[in-house]
Amino acid sequence: MTSIITYGQAPELEVVTWLNTKQPLTLSALRGKVIVIHAFQMLCPACVVHGIPQASAIHELYSQDEVQVIGLHTVFEHHNVMTVEALTAFAAEYRLTFPIAVDVPSNTGSIPKTMAAYYMQGTPTLIVIDQQGQIRHNLFGRTSDMQVGNFIGQIISEGKSYR
Amino acid sequence: MTSIITYGQAPELEVVTWLNTKQPLTLSALRGKVIVIHAFQMLCPACVVHGIPQASAIHELYSQDEVQVIGLHTVFEHHNVMTVEALTAFAAEYRLTFPIAVDVPSNTGSIPKTMAAYYMQGTPTLIVIDQQGQIRHNLFGRTSDMQVGNFIGQIISEGKSYR
Amino acid sequence: MTSIITYGQAPELEVVTWLNTKQPLTLSALRGKVIVIHAFQMLCPACVVHGIPQASAIHELYSQDEVQVIGLHTVFEHHNVMTVEALTAFAAEYRLTFPIAVDVPSNTGSIPKTMAAYYMQGTPTLIVIDQQGQIRHNLFGRTSDMQVGNFIGQIISEGKSYR
Amino acid sequence: MTSIITYGQAPELEVVTWLNTKQPLTLSALRGKVIVIHAFQMLCPACVVHGIPQASAIHELYSQDEVQVIGLHTVFEHHNVMTVEALTAFAAEYRLTFPIAVDVPSNTGSIPKTMAAYYMQGTPTLIVIDQQGQIRHNLFGRTSDMQVGNFIGQIISEGKSYR
Repeated sequence: MTSIITYGQAPELEVVTWLNTKQPLTLSALRGKVIVIHAFQMLCPACVVHGIPQASAIHELYSQDEVQVIGLHTVFEHHNVMTVEALTAFAAEYRLTFPIAVDVPSNTGSIPKTMAAYYMQGTPTLIVIDQQGQIRHNLFGRTSDMQVGNFIGQIISEGKSYR
Repeated sequence: MTSIITYGQAPELEVVTWLNTKQPLTLSALRGKVIVIHAFQMLCPACVVHGIPQASAIHELYSQDEVQVIGLHTVFEHHNVMTVEALTAFAAEYRLTFPIAVDVPSNTGSIPKTMAAYYMQGTPTLIVIDQQGQIRHNLFGRTSDMQVGNFIGQIISEGKSYR
Repeated sequence: MTSIITYGQAPELEVVTWLNTKQPLTLSALRGKVIVIHAFQMLCPACVVHGIPQASAIHELYSQDEVQVIGLHTVFEHHNVMTVEALTAFAAEYRLTFPIAVDVPSNTGSIPKTMAAYYMQGTPTLIVIDQQGQIRHNLFGRTSDMQVGNFIGQIISEGKSYR
Repeated sequence: MTSIITYGQAPELEVVTWLNTKQPLTLSALRGKVIVIHAFQMLCPACVVHGIPQASAIHELYSQDEVQVIGLHTVFEHHNVMTVEALTAFAAEYRLTFPIAVDVPSNTGSIPKTMAAYYMQGTPTLIVIDQQGQIRHNLFGRTSDMQVGNFIGQIISEGKSYR
């Protein structure tokens, strides 16, 4: 993994459409929870083998009252075939159950808007946002399950100490 | 795995187009080699996790003089998104190097023509054809690497004893 | 995993001898750090396949200023062959680098003394003790790496909030 | 893996004692079957993680009429602790069911007698002997399951063509 230091308030997601949720989610409405954004592309092998199973494991381990997992489909290559329709089939076949946002394509380049706003370097990227909406981790590549649990656990515990 | 007894001559592949080969392949021109057909769909999780890595391992283990691996994209669901263009992106991202044939869609149903001709039950399916063009194994689901090596090894050795 | 609720002060380790440390460790001297005790037997398959690699991963992930991993060889069967000499060969072959304590055999039964004091149900068992010396988790069997990271991370973070 | 060319008749096993068999086995009495010898040490990590599970998989895949798996405990280090009593506990804990022979210690050096007779370089080693008692493969280190299946399958098939 490579860690990008991007402290500060997490920019709001820019989203074309959502899967696996009745209502669109916003980071501001999730204030008070830890938010884990798993940015992926459906044709990215490291996402399929590592990132998506890890995101699913986070989704299963934690109560949604404490941690909200959000998949973010950040298409920056093969735009013609990684469409919303293709992603919908992919999510069904892989039985993904956490909410998935489709990032808004750029008007000018290949990098979609939320991906650019978070200075992501590629996929998979895992972003961990604390209960106050601050970006705490912005992790490109593979991070071990133990480290991910450690990062989330630390932020959960901080939240308890504020009360 | 489930084994289907379909002895007899292997029907010729019906193919829309090929990837990873300059010349289209035909089973008849491959007579004298063991042919391993790995039937898959790019959005089938068991294919991505098990079948495709196994097909790649077969392709790496054996000399192409003895064993020819052929991927066969047998789309029987999500036809709109598992297009040739999408498969091409998939094969590039997963760095597949063995020849891949795209099965011909049916005029009347969802099952493509080669898939139907072999009575395949789904994906992944591994078909092993001997040097005389006879179907020897038609294996739906997951078969262990050891068993696959065993089946191929037995047929290779038979071929030597004919000489 | 099965969690045993055994709140309260962690009893001091009873130790025949130590491996991988110049000085014997005591829990009281480690006050202020998170302590992770991995109880194992060298001939326990789930310990070898799961527990010991997990203990090594904890040892690698965390600074020893924050988290002290201690292996505890709790022999409760095959006493004749799981000797200190055998354990020493085992630890060398498996290249274990964290400190390992050998639990003191019982005078009356098969369960060694520290194992009994912690009411352990078998091996592998993972015990997590906080900075104040309180038992926080007493986990028999397999616990996922993500959950272990989560538990340790929460306790680390609590420690920071006390300051 | 490293392959040692040691063609020729397989030397008979020299054995202190057997586990998991009522009668001692001899290679000569097994003529007509493929024999797979898995040489290991109970404290060798690569044996525990790779070699022993592979030997068990061979034992499960093939009929004992065709392939006889034999474990061979070739202790060449830590002799004091890798005793027959320790091996017996190990085999019980790991639920090994194939016959296991204990190699005869050398009078003069650390390498036991069968290990020396086969010119083995270490553990794990996998030796494949054909139906005529000829050594066909002498493989030190890790060999893939597919390759092992391939080697055994080829020899099985040869045996059929002799009939």
